[in-house]
Amino acid sequence: MDIELLSATKSFGGWLKRYKHRSKVLNCEMIFAIYLPPAAEEQKVPLLWWLSGLTCTDENFMQKAGAQRMAAELGMAIVCPDTSPRGTELPGEHDSYDFGSGAGFYVNATRSPWSQHYRMYDYVTSELPALINQHFPLNGKESISGHSMGGHGALICALKNPGRYRSVSAFAPITHPGQCPWGEKAFSGYLGEDRETWKAWDSCELIRQNGSELPLLVDQGEADNFYTDGQLLPEDLLAACQEAGVELNLRMQPGYDHSYFFIASFIDEHLKYHAEKLK
Amino acid sequence: MDIELLSATKSFGGWLKRYKHRSKVLNCEMIFAIYLPPAAEEQKVPLLWWLSGLTCTDENFMQKAGAQRMAAELGMAIVCPDTSPRGTELPGEHDSYDFGSGAGFYVNATRSPWSQHYRMYDYVTSELPALINQHFPLNGKESISGHSMGGHGALICALKNPGRYRSVSAFAPITHPGQCPWGEKAFSGYLGEDRETWKAWDSCELIRQNGSELPLLVDQGEADNFYTDGQLLPEDLLAACQEAGVELNLRMQPGYDHSYFFIASFIDEHLKYHAEKLK
Repeated sequence: MDIELLSATKSFGGWLKRYKHRSKVLNCEMIFAIYLPPAAEEQKVPLLWWLSGLTCTDENFMQKAGAQRMAAELGMAIVCPDTSPRGTELPGEHDSYDFGSGAGFYVNATRSPWSQHYRMYDYVTSELPALINQHFPLNGKESISGHSMGGHGALICALKNPGRYRSVSAFAPITHPGQCPWGEKAFSGYLGEDRETWKAWDSCELIRQNGSELPLLVDQGEADNFYTDGQLLPEDLLAACQEAGVELNLRMQPGYDHSYFFIASFIDEHLKYHAEKLK
Repeated sequence: MDIELLSATKSFGGWLKRYKHRSKVLNCEMIFAIYLPPAAEEQKVPLLWWLSGLTCTDENFMQKAGAQRMAAELGMAIVCPDTSPRGTELPGEHDSYDFGSGAGFYVNATRSPWSQHYRMYDYVTSELPALINQHFPLNGKESISGHSMGGHGALICALKNPGRYRSVSAFAPITHPGQCPWGEKAFSGYLGEDRETWKAWDSCELIRQNGSELPLLVDQGEADNFYTDGQLLPEDLLAACQEAGVELNLRMQPGYDHSYFFIASFIDEHLKYHAEKLK
Protein backbone atom coordinates (compact mmCIF):
# COMPACT_ATOMS: atom_id res chain seq x y z
CA MET A 1 0.00 0.00 0.00
CA ASP A 2 1.78 3.08 -1.22
CA ILE A 3 1.24 6.65 -0.20
CA GLU A 4 2.37 9.75 -2.03
CA LEU A 5 3.38 12.85 -0.10
CA LEU A 6 1.54 15.93 -1.38
CA SER A 7 2.85 18.50 1.07
CA ALA A 8 4.75 18.85 4.33
CA THR A 9 4.28 21.99 6.41
CA LYS A 10 6.07 22.72 9.64
CA SER A 11 3.64 23.54 12.41
CA PHE A 12 4.43 24.06 16.09
CA GLY A 13 7.72 22.24 15.70
CA GLY A 14 6.02 19.19 14.15
CA TRP A 15 4.83 18.44 10.64
CA LEU A 16 1.48 18.56 8.95
CA LYS A 17 1.62 16.20 6.00
CA ARG A 18 -0.92 15.43 3.32
CA TYR A 19 -0.84 12.17 1.41
CA LYS A 20 -2.63 10.65 -1.55
CA HIS A 21 -3.24 6.93 -1.81
CA ARG A 22 -5.35 4.42 -3.67
CA SER A 23 -8.15 3.08 -1.49
CA LYS A 24 -9.26 -0.45 -2.30
CA VAL A 25 -12.21 -0.18 0.05
CA LEU A 26 -13.51 3.01 -1.57
CA ASN A 27 -12.28 2.14 -5.04
CA CYS A 28 -10.81 5.60 -5.66
CA GLU A 29 -7.89 7.83 -4.79
CA MET A 30 -8.08 9.49 -1.40
CA ILE A 31 -6.20 12.20 0.46
CA PHE A 32 -5.62 12.26 4.19
CA ALA A 33 -3.75 14.61 6.51
CA ILE A 34 -1.60 13.71 9.49
CA TYR A 35 -0.11 15.98 12.11
CA LEU A 36 3.04 14.55 13.63
CA PRO A 37 4.10 16.29 16.83
CA PRO A 38 7.79 16.99 17.54
CA ALA A 39 7.90 13.94 19.84
CA ALA A 40 7.27 11.68 16.83
CA GLU A 41 10.81 12.32 15.65
CA GLU A 42 12.16 10.38 18.64
CA GLN A 43 9.47 7.94 19.72
CA LYS A 44 6.18 6.33 18.77
CA VAL A 45 3.21 8.49 19.70
CA PRO A 46 -0.51 7.95 20.32
CA LEU A 47 -3.05 8.91 17.69
CA LEU A 48 -6.27 10.89 17.66
CA TRP A 49 -8.62 10.31 14.75
CA TRP A 50 -10.58 13.37 13.72
CA LEU A 51 -13.66 12.85 11.56
CA SER A 52 -14.94 16.01 9.91
CA GLY A 53 -18.43 17.17 9.07
CA LEU A 54 -20.48 17.74 5.93
CA THR A 55 -18.68 19.49 3.05
CA CYS A 56 -15.26 19.15 4.70
CA THR A 57 -12.09 17.56 3.38
CA ASP A 58 -8.94 16.57 5.26
CA GLU A 59 -8.03 20.26 5.40
CA ASN A 60 -10.69 22.09 7.43
CA PHE A 61 -9.76 20.81 10.86
CA MET A 62 -6.03 21.27 10.35
CA GLN A 63 -6.52 24.85 9.13
CA LYS A 64 -9.19 26.08 11.50
CA ALA A 65 -9.32 24.13 14.76
CA GLY A 66 -6.00 25.32 16.14
CA ALA A 67 -5.32 21.81 17.47
CA GLN A 68 -1.66 21.50 16.53
CA ARG A 69 -0.42 23.66 19.39
CA MET A 70 -1.79 21.36 22.06
CA ALA A 71 -1.13 18.20 20.04
CA ALA A 72 2.52 19.26 19.85
CA GLU A 73 2.60 19.88 23.58
CA LEU A 74 0.92 16.56 24.37
CA GLY A 75 2.94 14.56 21.86
CA MET A 76 -0.14 13.30 20.04
CA ALA A 77 -0.55 12.63 16.32
CA ILE A 78 -3.82 13.54 14.61
CA VAL A 79 -5.17 12.01 11.41
CA CYS A 80 -7.92 13.67 9.38
CA PRO A 81 -9.46 11.46 6.69
CA ASP A 82 -11.59 12.99 3.97
CA THR A 83 -15.38 12.82 4.42
CA SER A 84 -16.33 10.75 1.36
CA PRO A 85 -14.92 8.98 -1.68
CA ARG A 86 -13.58 11.41 -4.28
CA GLY A 87 -13.14 11.50 -8.02
CA THR A 88 -16.12 9.29 -8.63
CA GLU A 89 -19.04 10.36 -10.76
CA LEU A 90 -22.13 8.57 -9.49
CA PRO A 91 -25.52 9.96 -10.57
CA GLY A 92 -26.38 12.96 -8.39
CA GLU A 93 -23.24 12.50 -6.27
CA HIS A 94 -22.31 16.17 -6.31
CA ASP A 95 -25.79 17.67 -6.29
CA SER A 96 -26.30 18.33 -2.57
CA TYR A 97 -24.07 19.23 0.34
CA ASP A 98 -25.60 16.60 2.63
CA PHE A 99 -25.46 13.50 0.44
CA GLY A 100 -22.76 12.01 -1.78
CA SER A 101 -19.41 13.76 -2.04
CA GLY A 102 -18.41 15.43 1.22
CA ALA A 103 -21.15 13.51 3.02
CA GLY A 104 -20.16 9.87 3.39
CA PHE A 105 -21.64 9.64 6.90
CA TYR A 106 -19.04 7.01 7.90
CA VAL A 107 -21.33 4.11 6.99
CA ASN A 108 -20.89 1.18 4.59
CA ALA A 109 -23.46 1.78 1.88
CA THR A 110 -25.47 -1.25 0.83
CA ARG A 111 -27.53 0.35 -1.94
CA SER A 112 -26.31 0.51 -5.50
CA PRO A 113 -24.57 2.50 -6.88
CA TRP A 114 -23.26 3.89 -3.56
CA SER A 115 -22.08 0.51 -2.30
CA GLN A 116 -19.35 0.50 -4.97
CA HIS A 117 -17.55 3.35 -3.25
CA TYR A 118 -19.25 4.69 -0.14
CA ARG A 119 -17.75 2.42 2.52
CA MET A 120 -16.31 5.13 4.74
CA TYR A 121 -16.77 3.06 7.90
CA ASP A 122 -14.44 0.34 6.67
CA TYR A 123 -12.10 3.00 5.35
CA VAL A 124 -11.70 4.88 8.64
CA THR A 125 -11.75 1.84 10.93
CA SER A 126 -9.73 -0.68 8.86
CA GLU A 127 -8.01 0.34 5.66
CA LEU A 128 -6.68 3.75 6.68
CA PRO A 129 -5.56 2.62 10.16
CA ALA A 130 -3.54 -0.20 8.59
CA LEU A 131 -1.94 2.23 6.16
CA ILE A 132 -1.20 4.79 8.86
CA ASN A 133 0.32 2.28 11.23
CA GLN A 134 2.56 1.00 8.48
CA HIS A 135 3.98 4.40 7.59
CA PHE A 136 4.16 6.50 10.75
CA PRO A 137 5.70 6.20 14.23
CA LEU A 138 2.49 5.42 16.13
CA ASN A 139 2.32 3.41 19.34
CA GLY A 140 -1.00 1.72 18.60
CA LYS A 141 -3.03 3.69 21.13
CA GLU A 142 -5.94 5.45 19.46
CA SER A 143 -8.74 7.79 20.40
CA ILE A 144 -11.38 9.32 18.18
CA SER A 145 -13.28 12.58 17.90
CA GLY A 146 -15.18 14.54 15.31
CA HIS A 147 -17.64 17.26 14.46
CA SER A 148 -21.28 17.09 13.37
CA MET A 149 -21.46 14.26 10.80
CA GLY A 150 -17.94 13.40 12.00
CA GLY A 151 -19.11 13.49 15.62
CA HIS A 152 -21.65 10.88 14.61
CA GLY A 153 -18.82 9.00 12.91
CA ALA A 154 -16.59 9.13 15.99
CA LEU A 155 -19.39 7.91 18.25
CA ILE A 156 -20.42 4.97 16.04
CA CYS A 157 -16.80 3.92 15.44
CA ALA A 158 -16.25 3.81 19.20
CA LEU A 159 -19.60 2.17 19.99
CA LYS A 160 -19.18 -0.52 17.30
CA ASN A 161 -15.63 -1.38 18.39
CA PRO A 162 -15.49 -1.85 22.15
CA GLY A 163 -11.92 -1.84 23.39
CA ARG A 164 -10.53 -0.36 20.20
CA TYR A 165 -10.31 3.31 21.20
CA ARG A 166 -9.08 4.61 24.53
CA SER A 167 -11.56 7.50 24.47
CA VAL A 168 -14.15 9.19 22.32
CA SER A 169 -15.49 12.72 22.14
CA ALA A 170 -17.58 14.77 19.77
CA PHE A 171 -18.49 18.33 18.92
CA ALA A 172 -22.13 18.92 18.00
CA PRO A 173 -22.58 15.33 16.77
CA ILE A 174 -25.55 14.04 14.80
CA THR A 175 -26.51 11.74 17.65
CA HIS A 176 -29.68 10.17 16.30
CA PRO A 177 -29.43 10.07 12.51
CA GLY A 178 -32.45 7.80 12.19
CA GLN A 179 -34.57 10.61 13.58
CA CYS A 180 -33.26 13.76 11.89
CA PRO A 181 -33.51 15.06 8.32
CA TRP A 182 -29.78 14.78 7.55
CA GLY A 183 -29.63 11.20 8.76
CA GLU A 184 -32.87 10.16 7.13
CA LYS A 185 -31.71 11.44 3.77
CA ALA A 186 -28.27 9.85 4.04
CA PHE A 187 -29.40 6.51 5.43
CA SER A 188 -32.25 6.19 2.91
CA GLY A 189 -29.77 6.78 0.14
CA TYR A 190 -26.90 4.65 1.37
CA LEU A 191 -28.82 1.91 3.21
CA GLY A 192 -32.32 1.87 1.76
CA GLU A 193 -35.73 2.30 3.32
CA ASP A 194 -35.61 -0.53 5.88
CA ARG A 195 -35.09 1.47 9.03
CA GLU A 196 -34.04 -1.62 10.97
CA THR A 197 -30.78 -1.62 9.02
CA TRP A 198 -30.16 1.96 10.07
CA LYS A 199 -29.82 1.06 13.73
CA ALA A 200 -26.33 -0.36 13.27
CA TRP A 201 -25.17 3.16 12.32
CA ASP A 202 -27.04 5.23 14.89
CA SER A 203 -25.41 6.18 18.20
CA CYS A 204 -28.65 6.32 20.14
CA GLU A 205 -29.69 2.88 18.88
CA LEU A 206 -26.25 1.37 19.42
CA ILE A 207 -26.21 2.63 22.99
CA ARG A 208 -29.67 1.23 23.65
CA GLN A 209 -28.64 -2.14 22.20
CA ASN A 210 -25.16 -2.56 23.56
CA GLY A 211 -24.40 0.24 26.03
CA SER A 212 -20.81 1.46 26.17
CA GLU A 213 -17.94 0.83 28.55
CA LEU A 214 -16.35 3.97 27.22
CA PRO A 215 -17.69 7.24 28.64
CA LEU A 216 -18.72 9.88 26.08
CA LEU A 217 -17.62 13.52 26.08
CA VAL A 218 -19.81 15.78 23.96
CA ASP A 219 -19.80 19.56 23.54
CA GLN A 220 -22.86 21.20 22.01
CA GLY A 221 -23.26 24.91 21.31
CA GLU A 222 -26.60 26.27 22.39
CA ALA A 223 -26.67 28.84 19.56
CA ASP A 224 -25.99 26.16 16.94
CA ASN A 225 -28.68 26.53 14.28
CA PHE A 226 -28.46 22.84 13.40
CA TYR A 227 -29.17 22.04 17.03
CA THR A 228 -32.21 24.28 17.12
CA ASP A 229 -33.29 22.81 13.76
CA GLY A 230 -33.37 19.32 15.26
CA GLN A 231 -30.49 17.79 13.33
CA LEU A 232 -28.28 16.97 16.31
CA LEU A 233 -30.67 15.86 19.09
CA PRO A 234 -28.29 15.74 22.08
CA GLU A 235 -31.32 15.21 24.31
CA ASP A 236 -31.89 11.87 22.57
CA LEU A 237 -28.30 10.89 23.26
CA LEU A 238 -28.74 11.87 26.89
CA ALA A 239 -31.91 9.79 27.17
CA ALA A 240 -30.28 6.77 25.53
CA CYS A 241 -27.25 7.02 27.82
CA GLN A 242 -29.41 7.36 30.91
CA GLU A 243 -31.48 4.35 29.84
CA ALA A 244 -28.41 2.22 29.14
CA GLY A 245 -26.35 3.43 32.08
CA VAL A 246 -23.67 4.95 29.85
CA GLU A 247 -21.55 7.77 31.23
CA LEU A 248 -22.12 10.90 29.16
CA ASN A 249 -20.53 14.27 29.85
CA LEU A 250 -22.78 16.46 27.70
CA ARG A 251 -21.65 20.05 27.96
CA MET A 252 -24.12 22.58 26.61
CA GLN A 253 -22.08 25.68 25.69
CA PRO A 254 -24.11 28.90 25.81
CA GLY A 255 -23.70 31.22 22.85
CA TYR A 256 -21.60 28.91 20.67
CA ASP A 257 -22.61 28.00 17.14
CA HIS A 258 -21.75 25.09 14.82
CA SER A 259 -18.54 26.58 13.39
CA TYR A 260 -14.87 25.84 13.77
CA PHE A 261 -14.71 28.84 16.13
CA PHE A 262 -16.73 26.68 18.51
CA ILE A 263 -14.44 23.69 17.98
CA ALA A 264 -11.32 25.82 18.44
CA SER A 265 -12.67 27.18 21.71
CA PHE A 266 -12.84 23.72 23.28
CA ILE A 267 -10.42 21.54 21.29
CA ASP A 268 -7.67 21.90 23.89
CA GLU A 269 -9.92 20.39 26.55
CA HIS A 270 -10.75 17.48 24.28
CA LEU A 271 -7.11 16.90 23.39
CA LYS A 272 -6.12 16.88 27.06
CA TYR A 273 -8.98 14.50 27.82
CA HIS A 274 -7.81 12.09 25.12
CA ALA A 275 -4.14 12.44 26.07
CA GLU A 276 -4.95 11.39 29.62
CA LYS A 277 -6.65 8.22 28.35
CA LEU A 278 -3.90 7.54 25.81
CA LYS A 279 -1.17 7.46 28.43
CA MET B 1 -20.36 56.82 10.54
CA ASP B 2 -22.57 53.79 10.67
CA ILE B 3 -21.58 50.17 10.80
CA GLU B 4 -23.75 47.16 10.05
CA LEU B 5 -23.24 43.91 11.93
CA LEU B 6 -22.88 40.98 9.53
CA SER B 7 -22.19 38.20 12.02
CA ALA B 8 -21.31 37.57 15.65
CA THR B 9 -19.62 34.32 16.58
CA LYS B 10 -18.69 33.32 20.09
CA SER B 11 -15.03 32.39 20.31
CA PHE B 12 -13.06 31.59 23.47
CA GLY B 13 -15.64 33.33 25.60
CA GLY B 14 -15.42 36.52 23.54
CA TRP B 15 -16.97 37.54 20.25
CA LEU B 16 -15.75 37.63 16.70
CA LYS B 17 -17.83 40.19 14.84
CA ARG B 18 -17.83 41.21 11.22
CA TYR B 19 -19.13 44.60 10.13
CA LYS B 20 -19.86 46.36 6.88
CA HIS B 21 -19.50 50.11 6.52
CA ARG B 22 -19.20 52.79 3.89
CA SER B 23 -15.62 54.05 3.60
CA LYS B 24 -15.28 57.66 2.48
CA VAL B 25 -11.55 57.31 2.08
CA LEU B 26 -11.83 54.28 -0.20
CA ASN B 27 -15.10 55.35 -1.76
CA CYS B 28 -16.68 51.91 -1.42
CA GLU B 29 -18.25 49.54 1.08
CA MET B 30 -15.81 47.66 3.26
CA ILE B 31 -15.94 44.77 5.72
CA PHE B 32 -13.78 44.45 8.80
CA ALA B 33 -13.56 41.90 11.59
CA ILE B 34 -13.01 42.53 15.28
CA TYR B 35 -12.32 40.03 18.02
CA LEU B 36 -13.49 41.27 21.40
CA PRO B 37 -12.07 39.29 24.33
CA PRO B 38 -14.26 38.42 27.33
CA ALA B 39 -12.65 41.30 29.27
CA ALA B 40 -14.22 43.79 26.84
CA GLU B 41 -17.62 43.14 28.43
CA GLU B 42 -16.45 44.81 31.61
CA GLN B 43 -13.70 47.25 30.71
CA LYS B 44 -11.94 49.01 27.85
CA VAL B 45 -9.23 46.89 26.30
CA PRO B 46 -6.10 47.49 24.20
CA LEU B 47 -6.13 46.78 20.47
CA LEU B 48 -3.89 44.90 18.10
CA TRP B 49 -4.21 45.76 14.41
CA TRP B 50 -3.60 42.81 12.10
CA LEU B 51 -2.88 43.57 8.45
CA SER B 52 -3.20 40.57 6.16
CA GLY B 53 -1.32 39.58 3.05
CA LEU B 54 -2.02 39.27 -0.65
CA THR B 55 -5.38 37.67 -1.60
CA CYS B 56 -6.67 37.80 1.99
CA THR B 57 -9.82 39.39 3.35
CA ASP B 58 -10.76 40.17 6.95
CA GLU B 59 -11.42 36.45 7.43
CA ASN B 60 -8.15 34.55 6.92
CA PHE B 61 -6.41 35.58 10.11
CA MET B 62 -9.44 35.04 12.30
CA GLN B 63 -10.05 31.57 10.84
CA LYS B 64 -6.51 30.27 10.59
CA ALA B 65 -4.10 31.98 12.96
CA GLY B 66 -5.55 30.61 16.18
CA ALA B 67 -5.03 33.99 17.84
CA GLN B 68 -8.31 34.26 19.73
CA ARG B 69 -7.26 31.87 22.49
CA MET B 70 -4.35 34.01 23.61
CA ALA B 71 -6.15 37.31 22.86
CA ALA B 72 -8.94 36.16 25.18
CA GLU B 73 -6.41 35.28 27.86
CA LEU B 74 -4.56 38.58 27.48
CA GLY B 75 -7.71 40.70 27.23
CA MET B 76 -6.73 42.15 23.88
CA ALA B 77 -9.00 43.10 20.97
CA ILE B 78 -7.84 42.39 17.42
CA VAL B 79 -9.06 44.18 14.30
CA CYS B 80 -8.55 42.75 10.81
CA PRO B 81 -9.24 45.17 7.96
CA ASP B 82 -9.64 43.90 4.43
CA THR B 83 -6.61 44.14 2.12
CA SER B 84 -7.98 46.43 -0.58
CA PRO B 85 -11.05 48.36 -1.66
CA ARG B 86 -13.90 46.09 -2.76
CA GLY B 87 -16.82 46.23 -5.13
CA THR B 88 -15.03 48.58 -7.50
CA GLU B 89 -14.43 47.75 -11.13
CA LEU B 90 -11.28 49.51 -12.22
CA PRO B 91 -9.62 48.30 -15.45
CA GLY B 92 -7.58 45.18 -14.68
CA GLU B 93 -8.36 45.41 -10.98
CA HIS B 94 -9.17 41.72 -10.59
CA ASP B 95 -6.68 40.32 -13.11
CA SER B 96 -3.76 39.44 -10.86
CA TYR B 97 -3.37 38.27 -7.27
CA ASP B 98 -0.61 40.76 -6.51
CA PHE B 99 -2.15 44.00 -7.75
CA GLY B 100 -5.58 45.57 -7.39
CA SER B 101 -8.22 43.75 -5.36
CA GLY B 102 -6.73 41.85 -2.46
CA ALA B 103 -3.45 43.69 -2.93
CA GLY B 104 -3.80 47.29 -1.72
CA PHE B 105 -0.29 47.31 -0.23
CA TYR B 106 -1.39 49.78 2.48
CA VAL B 107 -0.30 52.81 0.43
CA ASN B 108 -2.19 55.87 -0.78
CA ALA B 109 -2.24 55.53 -4.55
CA THR B 110 -1.45 58.68 -6.51
CA ARG B 111 -1.93 57.34 -10.02
CA SER B 112 -5.29 57.40 -11.73
CA PRO B 113 -7.54 55.45 -11.64
CA TRP B 114 -6.22 53.81 -8.45
CA SER B 115 -6.10 57.05 -6.50
CA GLN B 116 -9.93 57.19 -6.52
CA HIS B 117 -10.11 54.15 -4.22
CA TYR B 118 -6.76 52.67 -3.27
CA ARG B 119 -5.93 54.69 -0.17
CA MET B 120 -5.49 51.81 2.22
CA TYR B 121 -2.91 53.67 4.32
CA ASP B 122 -5.36 56.39 5.24
CA TYR B 123 -8.03 53.77 5.75
CA VAL B 124 -6.10 51.67 8.24
CA THR B 125 -4.39 54.53 10.07
CA SER B 126 -7.20 57.12 10.16
CA GLU B 127 -10.69 56.28 9.00
CA LEU B 128 -11.03 52.79 10.41
CA PRO B 129 -9.38 53.63 13.76
CA ALA B 130 -11.85 56.51 14.24
CA LEU B 131 -14.75 54.20 13.45
CA ILE B 132 -13.48 51.44 15.71
CA ASN B 133 -12.87 53.75 18.64
CA GLN B 134 -16.36 55.16 18.32
CA HIS B 135 -18.09 51.79 18.45
CA PHE B 136 -16.06 49.47 20.68
CA PRO B 137 -14.75 49.49 24.27
CA LEU B 138 -11.11 50.23 23.46
CA ASN B 139 -8.70 52.00 25.79
CA GLY B 140 -6.77 53.84 23.05
CA LYS B 141 -3.62 51.75 23.32
CA GLU B 142 -2.74 50.19 19.96
CA SER B 143 -0.13 47.87 18.55
CA ILE B 144 0.18 46.57 15.01
CA SER B 145 1.26 43.39 13.27
CA GLY B 146 0.76 41.68 9.95
CA HIS B 147 1.87 39.09 7.45
CA SER B 148 3.74 39.42 4.15
CA MET B 149 2.16 42.44 2.38
CA GLY B 150 0.50 43.11 5.74
CA GLY B 151 3.84 42.80 7.52
CA HIS B 152 5.06 45.56 5.21
CA GLY B 153 1.88 47.45 6.09
CA ALA B 154 2.41 47.05 9.82
CA LEU B 155 6.02 48.19 9.59
CA ILE B 156 5.31 51.30 7.49
CA CYS B 157 2.34 52.28 9.66
CA ALA B 158 4.54 52.13 12.73
CA LEU B 159 7.54 53.81 11.08
CA LYS B 160 5.45 56.65 9.64
CA ASN B 161 3.68 57.34 12.94
CA PRO B 162 6.21 57.56 15.76
CA GLY B 163 4.49 57.37 19.13
CA ARG B 164 1.24 56.05 17.71
CA TYR B 165 1.69 52.33 18.33
CA ARG B 166 3.08 50.77 21.49
CA SER B 167 4.73 47.97 19.52
CA VAL B 168 5.05 46.50 16.05
CA SER B 169 5.80 43.03 14.77
CA ALA B 170 5.60 41.21 11.47
CA PHE B 171 5.56 37.73 9.98
CA ALA B 172 7.52 37.32 6.76
CA PRO B 173 7.09 40.98 5.81
CA ILE B 174 7.88 42.49 2.43
CA THR B 175 10.62 44.61 3.94
CA HIS B 176 12.01 46.36 0.89
CA PRO B 177 9.20 46.71 -1.64
CA GLY B 178 11.21 49.10 -3.80
CA GLN B 179 13.62 46.24 -4.49
CA CYS B 180 11.42 43.19 -5.00
CA PRO B 181 9.08 42.12 -7.83
CA TRP B 182 5.88 42.36 -5.78
CA GLY B 183 6.71 45.84 -4.55
CA GLU B 184 7.93 47.10 -7.90
CA LYS B 185 4.72 46.00 -9.58
CA ALA B 186 2.50 47.47 -6.90
CA PHE B 187 4.35 50.75 -6.46
CA SER B 188 4.67 51.32 -10.21
CA GLY B 189 0.94 50.86 -10.53
CA TYR B 190 -0.20 52.81 -7.50
CA LEU B 191 2.51 55.47 -7.32
CA GLY B 192 4.04 55.71 -10.79
CA GLU B 193 7.56 55.29 -12.07
CA ASP B 194 9.34 57.91 -9.96
CA ARG B 195 11.10 55.69 -7.47
CA GLU B 196 11.78 58.62 -5.14
CA THR B 197 8.07 58.65 -4.29
CA TRP B 198 8.26 54.98 -3.34
CA LYS B 199 10.58 55.63 -0.43
CA ALA B 200 7.80 56.99 1.76
CA TRP B 201 6.21 53.50 1.66
CA ASP B 202 9.26 51.31 2.06
CA SER B 203 10.36 50.09 5.48
CA CYS B 204 14.05 49.91 4.62
CA GLU B 205 14.01 53.44 3.23
CA LEU B 206 11.96 54.84 6.11
CA ILE B 207 14.38 53.32 8.61
CA ARG B 208 17.36 54.77 6.77
CA GLN B 209 15.70 58.20 6.68
CA ASN B 210 14.15 58.42 10.11
CA GLY B 211 15.24 55.45 12.21
CA SER B 212 12.74 54.13 14.73
CA GLU B 213 12.35 54.51 18.46
CA LEU B 214 10.19 51.42 18.40
CA PRO B 215 12.04 48.10 18.25
CA LEU B 216 10.94 45.68 15.53
CA LEU B 217 10.04 42.02 16.04
CA VAL B 218 10.09 39.98 12.84
CA ASP B 219 9.67 36.24 12.29
CA GLN B 220 10.77 34.78 8.97
CA GLY B 221 10.46 31.13 7.93
CA GLU B 222 13.58 29.81 6.27
CA ALA B 223 11.57 27.44 4.03
CA ASP B 224 9.34 30.27 2.82
CA ASN B 225 9.40 30.15 -0.99
CA PHE B 226 8.75 33.89 -1.21
CA TYR B 227 11.80 34.46 0.96
CA THR B 228 13.99 32.29 -1.25
CA ASP B 229 12.47 34.03 -4.31
CA GLY B 230 13.68 37.41 -3.03
CA GLN B 231 10.30 38.99 -2.32
CA LEU B 232 10.83 39.54 1.41
CA LEU B 233 14.50 40.53 1.82
CA PRO B 234 14.86 40.37 5.62
CA GLU B 235 18.62 40.82 5.14
CA ASP B 236 17.91 44.29 3.73
CA LEU B 237 15.83 45.12 6.80
CA LEU B 238 18.65 43.90 9.03
CA ALA B 239 21.18 46.05 7.16
CA ALA B 240 18.95 49.14 7.32
CA CYS B 241 18.35 48.66 11.04
CA GLN B 242 22.04 48.15 11.73
CA GLU B 243 22.86 51.28 9.72
CA ALA B 244 20.24 53.38 11.51
CA GLY B 245 20.78 51.92 14.96
CA VAL B 246 17.26 50.48 15.12
CA GLU B 247 16.61 47.51 17.39
CA LEU B 248 15.49 44.54 15.30
CA ASN B 249 14.73 41.10 16.67
CA LEU B 250 14.79 39.12 13.42
CA ARG B 251 14.07 35.49 14.14
CA MET B 252 14.81 33.12 11.27
CA GLN B 253 12.63 30.04 11.83
CA PRO B 254 14.07 26.88 10.27
CA GLY B 255 11.65 24.75 8.27
CA TYR B 256 8.70 27.15 8.34
CA ASP B 257 7.00 28.33 5.18
CA HIS B 258 4.85 31.36 4.31
CA SER B 259 1.51 29.89 5.39
CA TYR B 260 -0.85 30.51 8.28
CA PHE B 261 0.59 27.35 9.86
CA PHE B 262 3.76 29.39 10.32
CA ILE B 263 1.83 32.35 11.74
CA ALA B 264 -0.16 30.10 14.09
CA SER B 265 3.06 28.56 15.40
CA PHE B 266 4.36 31.91 16.63
CA ILE B 267 1.32 34.14 17.06
CA ASP B 268 1.13 33.53 20.80
CA GLU B 269 4.63 34.91 21.25
CA HIS B 270 3.73 38.00 19.25
CA LEU B 271 0.52 38.54 21.18
CA LYS B 272 2.36 38.27 24.49
CA TYR B 273 5.00 40.68 23.23
CA HIS B 274 2.36 43.23 22.27
CA ALA B 275 0.37 42.71 25.47
CA GLU B 276 3.46 43.53 27.52
CA LYS B 277 3.87 46.84 25.65
CA LEU B 278 0.16 47.61 25.80
CA LYS B 279 0.01 47.43 29.58
